[in-house]
Amino acid sequence: MAPTKKHQVSVIGSGNWGSTIGKILAENTSEHTDTFETPVRMWVFEEEITVPSDSPHHSKYGDKPQKLTQIINETHENVKYLPGIKLPDNLIATPDIKEAVKDASILVFNLPHQFIGKTLDQIKGHHLPYARGVSCIKGVDVSDGKVTLFSELIMQKLGIYCGALSGANIAPEVAAERLCETTIGYDPPPMDLTSSDGSPEDNLPHVDGQRQKDLSSTDIKLERVPQDYPHVNDELLEKMFERPYFLVHVIKDVAGVALGGALKNIVALAAGFVAGKQWGENTKAAIIRQGVGEMIRFGRTWFPSSVNEKTFTEESAGIADLVASCYGGRNVRSATHAVEKGVSVAEIEKTEMNGQKLQGVSTAQTVYGFLEKHGKTDEFPLFCAVYNIIEGKAQVDDLPALLNRKK
Amino acid sequence: MAPTKKHQVSVIGSGNWGSTIGKILAENTSEHTDTFETPVRMWVFEEEITVPSDSPHHSKYGDKPQKLTQIINETHENVKYLPGIKLPDNLIATPDIKEAVKDASILVFNLPHQFIGKTLDQIKGHHLPYARGVSCIKGVDVSDGKVTLFSELIMQKLGIYCGALSGANIAPEVAAERLCETTIGYDPPPMDLTSSDGSPEDNLPHVDGQRQKDLSSTDIKLERVPQDYPHVNDELLEKMFERPYFLVHVIKDVAGVALGGALKNIVALAAGFVAGKQWGENTKAAIIRQGVGEMIRFGRTWFPSSVNEKTFTEESAGIADLVASCYGGRNVRSATHAVEKGVSVAEIEKTEMNGQKLQGVSTAQTVYGFLEKHGKTDEFPLFCAVYNIIEGKAQVDDLPALLNRKK
Repeated sequence: MAPTKKHQVSVIGSGNWGSTIGKILAENTSEHTDTFETPVRMWVFEEEITVPSDSPHHSKYGDKPQKLTQIINETHENVKYLPGIKLPDNLIATPDIKEAVKDASILVFNLPHQFIGKTLDQIKGHHLPYARGVSCIKGVDVSDGKVTLFSELIMQKLGIYCGALSGANIAPEVAAERLCETTIGYDPPPMDLTSSDGSPEDNLPHVDGQRQKDLSSTDIKLERVPQDYPHVNDELLEKMFERPYFLVHVIKDVAGVALGGALKNIVALAAGFVAGKQWGENTKAAIIRQGVGEMIRFGRTWFPSSVNEKTFTEESAGIADLVASCYGGRNVRSATHAVEKGVSVAEIEKTEMNGQKLQGVSTAQTVYGFLEKHGKTDEFPLFCAVYNIIEGKAQVDDLPALLNRKK
Repeated sequence: MAPTKKHQVSVIGSGNWGSTIGKILAENTSEHTDTFETPVRMWVFEEEITVPSDSPHHSKYGDKPQKLTQIINETHENVKYLPGIKLPDNLIATPDIKEAVKDASILVFNLPHQFIGKTLDQIKGHHLPYARGVSCIKGVDVSDGKVTLFSELIMQKLGIYCGALSGANIAPEVAAERLCETTIGYDPPPMDLTSSDGSPEDNLPHVDGQRQKDLSSTDIKLERVPQDYPHVNDELLEKMFERPYFLVHVIKDVAGVALGGALKNIVALAAGFVAGKQWGENTKAAIIRQGVGEMIRFGRTWFPSSVNEKTFTEESAGIADLVASCYGGRNVRSATHAVEKGVSVAEIEKTEMNGQKLQGVSTAQTVYGFLEKHGKTDEFPLFCAVYNIIEGKAQVDDLPALLNRKK
């Protein structure tokens, strides 16, 4: 049966990364009009803002505060979170989350992880029951000795299948259309892979038994995407996300994609510590290598059936994101400053980040608690060394001894 | 049978990396006196040099030229190639290569690859027939459509088994004892793994059938290391090379270790090109990721029986050396300058390197010729893009299009 309907795509979130992904999606829906409805709705947490005086749009609005959604829809620029980047005309900002998700067959989640729970509560019951999701939310939730991916949380709360997107994707660089890559973890649920008569299709992506087990263990009853929509598969996701400057690789390993984006932040702190000591390129490379090793071990230990080690070693969501985070970004920079100034990372959070917590710090703390609970600290010397340095229980100068454990 | 003899270790070569490795070896032989003879001989290509006026040793020698070996043995410093680093007293410089290799049961080769052929000719017939070798020589020899590792060349010319050492090991940083890691590829020949009655020993490293096939295909008749020496195995190599600041991992994949050290230089040029364009961390990370992918593919295609892909993705000789080379070193620096100044890499070689050839350039050229001969250019878009940019047949701005090929 040839599809008669087109997918309606919505983005939930409009920070710099949300707006950048919204830009990409809107560029693609207007190029692939056979597959997608052209307008892309972007849910914006409404704020009244004053357009900065150095913005070219200042003259239009003056100093009078305006609604951010109105500014975005009139100027096609997110003047607050992604200034200087022209957004496509078909990216439509809306402050109403029900309006944003209504009729959307594909939901792309891209907001800070601390807001996801509340936002999902607001969406619940207003979305299409057969919608499919892609989470661009970095990190994982580690609590009560359990690791939960945000894609899983979305699946559980909304009852829709959700994949994950991550990569070496520093938002302003992607927005400026500089070449980069990303990885999408998406393992289509079995019912999306059969034709209307219930038999498997010829050209199916490989579904391994294990993945199905993982899915079924969440006890979620998924609704099949109606056959009058184009199949939500690798090719569709590429059409949605790939741009000449944004190269997409779709894999099945959702857990690996999400874990990579979380654990890399711990390693980035270690990279900052040795950079602060000016120990040079050899040392930083050694830290990165050990970091990949512990990411692999983490996946192998807690997601043995679903994580593919190659996600860490060969994908943008793994090694590339790790490398980029060890050379640029807040975690490595703050850790470097801490060592250079001879103060704690907590002190840097206070003095340089207005008390905002570094992702590497919170991840190192939760992962350490998790490892301790499971009696596995010995197997993750780098992760634990970072935690101990953060907590003032070890010094950066101890790193050579801490890492020199023969396996 | 308990060993009654000790290993005599010699280093062939005394540049900055050779002197650094000599320092490490001499530190270890004086700590492990049960296993090694304490003195380590280092073959030095004799030169008459004037000690620089800013050297603390200048006052001793004045402006009168002296033999480099004499200066090293009197001051315990290689004032020309590794100034400022104290060498152990038991590292003995000798200008006589026959003297250097005499009675040495372990030979460590560490000299520029262009001198290796001639040096092996001089050694031939003067070394112990059962000596074992470790090559620290970077790169591989690609000619006549055939890839030859320098460890293989040593095996062929001297008739001794030889492994390889490589890693993220920028010499001055290692000499300054800053934390780093290295990988030794060493796959002991079968006869070294059996006890004197010819039966395999209990605690043998795993020898796979494939490796033996590779070895036998070289048609070399190796002589067994006499049983009165300690076994030359993983533990012995660790004792020889590991320091608190220099962490060693011994693996069996000699070819992977050598290939990693060669192919990374091509990727480093690409990293320099995008750095010159200021495309940011995402792009550089994407280049590194694609580089690892092509290194794996190269190994898989031409060393299917011997290369382990994990050498590239998880070892210091692979990913760590690649990352370090994409952020520091001559290849990335020169390629960055070329783009910034809008000139060719050849022009930079002329103006900034006194006409010396960059390793990345010669490797890219030989590898491209090799790929073309085998009709495999399509499978290595990054390697070929670097070649084409060097040759002026493509522009750095073409990189996104050149790399955007769906596999």
